[in-house]
Amino acid sequence: MVDTTHGNSGARMNRRMNRLSRVTRLPRALPALATVRSDVDAVLREFLREKAAGHLPTQLVEVVTDFLAAGGKRLRPLLCVTGWHAAAGEGTPPPSVVRVAAALEMFHTFALIHDDVMDQSSTRRGQPTVHRVLTARRIASGGSRSSAERFGVGGAVLVGDLMLTWSGELIHTAGLSPAELTSLLPLLDLMRAEIMYGQYLDLDATGAPTDDVERALTIARYKTSKYSIERPLHIGAVLGGADLDLLDGLTAYALPLGEAFQLRDDLLGVFGDPAQTGKPRLDDLRDGKHTALVALALRAASGRSADLLRDLLGREDLTDAQAEQVRTILVSTGARAGVEDMITRNRDRVEELLATPGPIHPGALPVLHDLADSATRRSA
Amino acid sequence: MVDTTHGNSGARMNRRMNRLSRVTRLPRALPALATVRSDVDAVLREFLREKAAGHLPTQLVEVVTDFLAAGGKRLRPLLCVTGWHAAAGEGTPPPSVVRVAAALEMFHTFALIHDDVMDQSSTRRGQPTVHRVLTARRIASGGSRSSAERFGVGGAVLVGDLMLTWSGELIHTAGLSPAELTSLLPLLDLMRAEIMYGQYLDLDATGAPTDDVERALTIARYKTSKYSIERPLHIGAVLGGADLDLLDGLTAYALPLGEAFQLRDDLLGVFGDPAQTGKPRLDDLRDGKHTALVALALRAASGRSADLLRDLLGREDLTDAQAEQVRTILVSTGARAGVEDMITRNRDRVEELLATPGPIHPGALPVLHDLADSATRRSA
Repeated sequence: MVDTTHGNSGARMNRRMNRLSRVTRLPRALPALATVRSDVDAVLREFLREKAAGHLPTQLVEVVTDFLAAGGKRLRPLLCVTGWHAAAGEGTPPPSVVRVAAALEMFHTFALIHDDVMDQSSTRRGQPTVHRVLTARRIASGGSRSSAERFGVGGAVLVGDLMLTWSGELIHTAGLSPAELTSLLPLLDLMRAEIMYGQYLDLDATGAPTDDVERALTIARYKTSKYSIERPLHIGAVLGGADLDLLDGLTAYALPLGEAFQLRDDLLGVFGDPAQTGKPRLDDLRDGKHTALVALALRAASGRSADLLRDLLGREDLTDAQAEQVRTILVSTGARAGVEDMITRNRDRVEELLATPGPIHPGALPVLHDLADSATRRSA
Repeated sequence: MVDTTHGNSGARMNRRMNRLSRVTRLPRALPALATVRSDVDAVLREFLREKAAGHLPTQLVEVVTDFLAAGGKRLRPLLCVTGWHAAAGEGTPPPSVVRVAAALEMFHTFALIHDDVMDQSSTRRGQPTVHRVLTARRIASGGSRSSAERFGVGGAVLVGDLMLTWSGELIHTAGLSPAELTSLLPLLDLMRAEIMYGQYLDLDATGAPTDDVERALTIARYKTSKYSIERPLHIGAVLGGADLDLLDGLTAYALPLGEAFQLRDDLLGVFGDPAQTGKPRLDDLRDGKHTALVALALRAASGRSADLLRDLLGREDLTDAQAEQVRTILVSTGARAGVEDMITRNRDRVEELLATPGPIHPGALPVLHDLADSATRRSA
């Protein structure tokens, strides 16, 4: 259930970075941002190469290497380095910051692998999910389907556990000073726990959506605002020497942006073009995902529409025609327009914040602005 | 697949502690050991109480609290505090050491919860496993069986992930000095990765046992010798100011003891009395667990015995009569006696080590001796 709607955006991110390097007010700060992706990937490749040279099963390293090579936008590393610039200004972040950024990507790999096990997903980034890869390998080497599936799920849980551990190891070996490490560890503990709370709340709510809009927004706050945006910014900022004022400023940016990001995701999950989003339009409805969109519709619907909505949401065998009925109700109740309004209000808050002089170093503003723009207006 | 054969041994451990406090040469050191269990449980209870007072779902804290209350021998905390005494000698370990010991128990909780998901186990410590508890709660609140099972497995994966994160948080908030933290983190990273390697190797080998004795011993080294014995001792010892000599001495103790412990476990899994071990005698055979016992038998068996063994091991529907056939072959090939010999040789190495003056502080020797004795001669 972790968000990955615009997964293949390496090229798009590079274009955005190139565009940014033309508009920035602090030209020396942004070349570092433009290479975050390749810098982080180089750290991860080297780390995995060392692990592969050790005593652990080759298969373990292979599946992770393949998973990382298949794509991903490296959003959290980018935000981490942006957070560093927000505090430290221009210049090139030290290698320790890049390594911490890489640790966030390793952590995200853990989250996605376990997410796919929990959702029983078959593909991710256009490739078979880790549990499917392991199952297929087992079948190829002569295992029965049931024992191979058990191996696939168990193996994916373990690979995820190992990624979580390795993400810690990347931090512990980043060459941070004792003071840096001491200020970082509580933030990392928070980030880890927050995504887990969010995932648990999401899992708990899935299958039984209600008209509780607040609950949907709470899930979005933990899974998206905090985990994907606020904490990566904070982590980079703390390493750049941020004070509490700056951390608060980044929170004020992250919370509305994350909410808008998730709301856009919810709309795309139901109304998006699968050719652009890369994910089917039926999954959220069939899973009975509890989103603000659905909650608003359940709140506004009455009579036959309300009954129909409750009947159809969460049906594993939902047909295309039934999904169209749901979409019609989501529009006629005003839920879709209501969610668009919420996105606009959140984006306005973010833009107002970025336009007001505050603790965020001006060099970091263009990328924060660009991210807010693309996250809320995107169609993929 | 994580070992827990003698799970209900709180009372036995207390008896052992009481016995120890009579035989020890350093009376002031051992009262601290006698209270490890209650000290560690107090830390865990307080930590969970604080978490429950926060914003996270109550259910999450409840299942963990119930799991910890259901039993467990707190072996790793005991070894951690023993490791501290091995370095620091008499006296009372500081609260930070007790908190680190509690973190090891929290980590073990993570390992067991994920292990039960991977093994699809239904009971642990005489209670339903975490995924079963969550599934049952979901059914009780009106969910369908299939959606409840999905919730149960997903929830247990998340609860385990959270325990892993909280075990780190317990360390990070233990009040360790920067130097202590810096020396501890690499050891913790090793311990975490080692159990995951061991579990992966075990999962990989299960269902297709071979005559490869070395492979079975490698699994035992990671899962039992290193994870359960060596690292807890090292972690405590480092906090007690251990030098490399002492760490090597503890390794020399842990590796043969862990191997003997696992070999005893393998024998009990097939020949033990279920009334004493608390686990059925068919599971290891039905799973086709790759143990040294089975590998020795496959190596020695010939003709019809070899065919029969290969045919029966790993059969999910193995009958009691077929299990008896397997046991007969395990005896007639000399595999059972061979494993007993290996246990004896390992125990002799441990006893010789403990009898030779070395870097381990004498105050820690009685408990190390007692542990070696009970772990290798036990019937439960």
